[in-house]
Amino acid sequence: MTTTAEPPLSEILLAAKKASTVLTSMSAADRQAVIEKMATNIERRSTEILSANKHDLKRAEKMLEDGEISRTMLDRLKLDEHKLSGMVTGIRQVASLPDPVGSITLARELDDGLILYQVSAPIGVIAVIFESRPDVLPQIASLALRSANVAVLKGGKEARYTLTVLFECLQEALTGKGLPSQTLILLENREQIDAILKADGLVDLIIPRGSAELVRYIQDHTRIPVLGHSEGVCHLYIHEDANLEMAVALAVDAKVQYPAACNSVETILVHATAAGEMLPLIAKQLFEQNVQIRADNRAFDLISTAPEMPEELHGQLELRESSEGDSESGSTDDSNLVAANSGSSETSSKSILIRANNEDWTTEYSDLIVSVKVVDSLDEAIDHINQYGSNHTDTIVTADADVFEKFFKGVNSAGVFWNASNRFADGFRYGFGAEVGISTNKLHPRGPVGLNGLVTYKYKLIGKGHVVADYVGESAKTFTHRDII
Amino acid sequence: MTTTAEPPLSEILLAAKKASTVLTSMSAADRQAVIEKMATNIERRSTEILSANKHDLKRAEKMLEDGEISRTMLDRLKLDEHKLSGMVTGIRQVASLPDPVGSITLARELDDGLILYQVSAPIGVIAVIFESRPDVLPQIASLALRSANVAVLKGGKEARYTLTVLFECLQEALTGKGLPSQTLILLENREQIDAILKADGLVDLIIPRGSAELVRYIQDHTRIPVLGHSEGVCHLYIHEDANLEMAVALAVDAKVQYPAACNSVETILVHATAAGEMLPLIAKQLFEQNVQIRADNRAFDLISTAPEMPEELHGQLELRESSEGDSESGSTDDSNLVAANSGSSETSSKSILIRANNEDWTTEYSDLIVSVKVVDSLDEAIDHINQYGSNHTDTIVTADADVFEKFFKGVNSAGVFWNASNRFADGFRYGFGAEVGISTNKLHPRGPVGLNGLVTYKYKLIGKGHVVADYVGESAKTFTHRDII
Repeated sequence: MTTTAEPPLSEILLAAKKASTVLTSMSAADRQAVIEKMATNIERRSTEILSANKHDLKRAEKMLEDGEISRTMLDRLKLDEHKLSGMVTGIRQVASLPDPVGSITLARELDDGLILYQVSAPIGVIAVIFESRPDVLPQIASLALRSANVAVLKGGKEARYTLTVLFECLQEALTGKGLPSQTLILLENREQIDAILKADGLVDLIIPRGSAELVRYIQDHTRIPVLGHSEGVCHLYIHEDANLEMAVALAVDAKVQYPAACNSVETILVHATAAGEMLPLIAKQLFEQNVQIRADNRAFDLISTAPEMPEELHGQLELRESSEGDSESGSTDDSNLVAANSGSSETSSKSILIRANNEDWTTEYSDLIVSVKVVDSLDEAIDHINQYGSNHTDTIVTADADVFEKFFKGVNSAGVFWNASNRFADGFRYGFGAEVGISTNKLHPRGPVGLNGLVTYKYKLIGKGHVVADYVGESAKTFTHRDII
Repeated sequence: MTTTAEPPLSEILLAAKKASTVLTSMSAADRQAVIEKMATNIERRSTEILSANKHDLKRAEKMLEDGEISRTMLDRLKLDEHKLSGMVTGIRQVASLPDPVGSITLARELDDGLILYQVSAPIGVIAVIFESRPDVLPQIASLALRSANVAVLKGGKEARYTLTVLFECLQEALTGKGLPSQTLILLENREQIDAILKADGLVDLIIPRGSAELVRYIQDHTRIPVLGHSEGVCHLYIHEDANLEMAVALAVDAKVQYPAACNSVETILVHATAAGEMLPLIAKQLFEQNVQIRADNRAFDLISTAPEMPEELHGQLELRESSEGDSESGSTDDSNLVAANSGSSETSSKSILIRANNEDWTTEYSDLIVSVKVVDSLDEAIDHINQYGSNHTDTIVTADADVFEKFFKGVNSAGVFWNASNRFADGFRYGFGAEVGISTNKLHPRGPVGLNGLVTYKYKLIGKGHVVADYVGESAKTFTHRDII
């Protein structure tokens, strides 16, 4: 299905690499001006963009009927005046963020007249693979320009007409300021994804923006670094000394506030000493919010037999001995839950408690379901999180700073929180101004990634003809190694 | 060939992951004490270590005869009193380096009572695959302990007896201070390398220490991040305004001082305006140091016909029209060059000038060979380096700060130098105290990597029961986002 008129991807990417050299030599002010122009162009052609989007939506309705795309994808495709104006505001915000390029993070005299700097620098060529949401295109374009990176974007065909007009707006801003058109590349063929994944040496970073399946596919098929996460299995651990009210509030916020988010909680661990008192009360609050609970045996018994469990729940609590069949898909087809999750105002009268199986501990439900386990110690909680979690964000509720410090050191996740909802793990809430994604990699960039995640660093060494031979042998000169910032 | 008594590698690595939790909760002072004990143990058992090493050397002589190992590997295997004492000093130096764990790189109030920190933290489990050199074991062990990482090491069988005694010294220090024995693991079976490469989720970083082939094999067969480089194709670009004397001195130092190093120069680019004057003089100096030159057509003509070329070279200059056959192996079998490279005091009377072919631009000679090309502009030099280089270290010689700034921005390498020898790209010379390796990755860690390259970061968020629901909707609280350091 490749258009024969189009050059092979390797040639396109080589041109992108060369464009990167031009872009890196452009001043920060000029890069800001390009971004501003992008926003202006989109404003000017807004009617055209919305009309192209209507056309895409019509096509997408048919694709939905044919089973080619999901309802969620169709919903995300839709633009309106309000969304478009948000898009333009977002672009201007990126233009106004501090320049991430050229920051000096180390300055050291190695010897008289020989000075070493570590300086933040663009990564080079970044590939972004996304689905449906056309607003990803101007967002990534502005972030890439702000960090002096070339961006190669592959969108979905369901958004083709909207992307085409948006891309013209962006391209005009680039070339109008003398940048090569290959500073920003939009690919259309699905086959090109696999070619990108193999383009080591030409593409320096891949950012997948879409379903967990898309992310996992990309992670499994490339040696190029991938910024992202396929799963967010986040934990809330309630220590024996936890404030009950706080524990309940954090459990509800972290599970219910937006269950589809990757930073929402999937497993609550409760210390055995506190479980008898706290678990029934936490369960009650979660049941009232239509949350299904999948409990290990100890938690199951405590919740199902608790005298504190309110009368009105006692009669309606549905107990299931097994969650088999449910957990495989990582979701549920229980209609009550689906209704609750989709924001229906109907309140469910049914509270469901199920015995957890082993798969529950590694499952991201992205739904009003939570697994619960009783643990005998802080160490057991830490081990559970490190073994079954996804290194995303994990929280402890405790009154004791030393206990938190041990939890912080022991849990190897991008975010380790004390008495605050896991849902705070987010680039905007962290004050990064814009979020590229959340990375569950162990190495940089890690956690919520803002503009600073799109730069790397270079070492700049300035000498006066210094040679290494002078620092070797009998009359060797010695290094001073004196930090000057 | 797997020993049946040994548990499967996945079990070993799971134990390593659990040991990591214990190690991270140990104080910096205690970790330093373990490292000190390692040094003491090695000193105490030095006779035993040297005797085990003699035994290995005897075995290795036979392996060399059988073609199982190279002469270089045998040379690197050898320990003596002097090397052993250097090993012990190195371990103590690592113990004395500042703790890389727990540095706060960001502290920000998100709202009243809600504080975010970015804190340096251990990576987790690091696998190191090395050949022959037994000193890698205590070096990595001390660096891993200092950064609170668990290390899984796979050495070569040629060093088995030496490694066994060294490993006992290290293990005794660990367990004596209450650390699990799995804090440091030594593997012996070659088959286990492939198992490590597939151990995503258990191993967080792989560091290959050995031949370019080993590094390339590892990079090609794992999705786990690899710290290292298979090639160092470094450039020296001499701009039209370069000081001649400085250009000659840097060319000689960067090529001749230690040609086998990854930071030595493989290609010299000379601006056309200066080439007529400078190239013959640079070539003369290089010929005098027994360097073979592989030149593009313009450089070939300038060097071979230059009137400035000294008489004594004119008569002896051997011209070859093609380097075919030579360049494929990335080395040469010319006996003069081999003699010069191995440090022989015999000076060659033969200077060799060859026409370069395309392969020369991507070849790391690791020998007294250099490719030379005339370029018409700074831009052409930058493009050549980005296209053919390995993003290691590239130098410009120029009198103009603006020209350097353009070179610095344009060249996407870990080190971009101005009027200083490429050979300075080294962790010790940078003042890192110890070097784990040099990374040509675009992302962190990049360039020479010291102890700081063995840590990542975590976000620590401390609240007082803060929930995200309060920051959403009509009466939403707003974030303060006030940096407090």
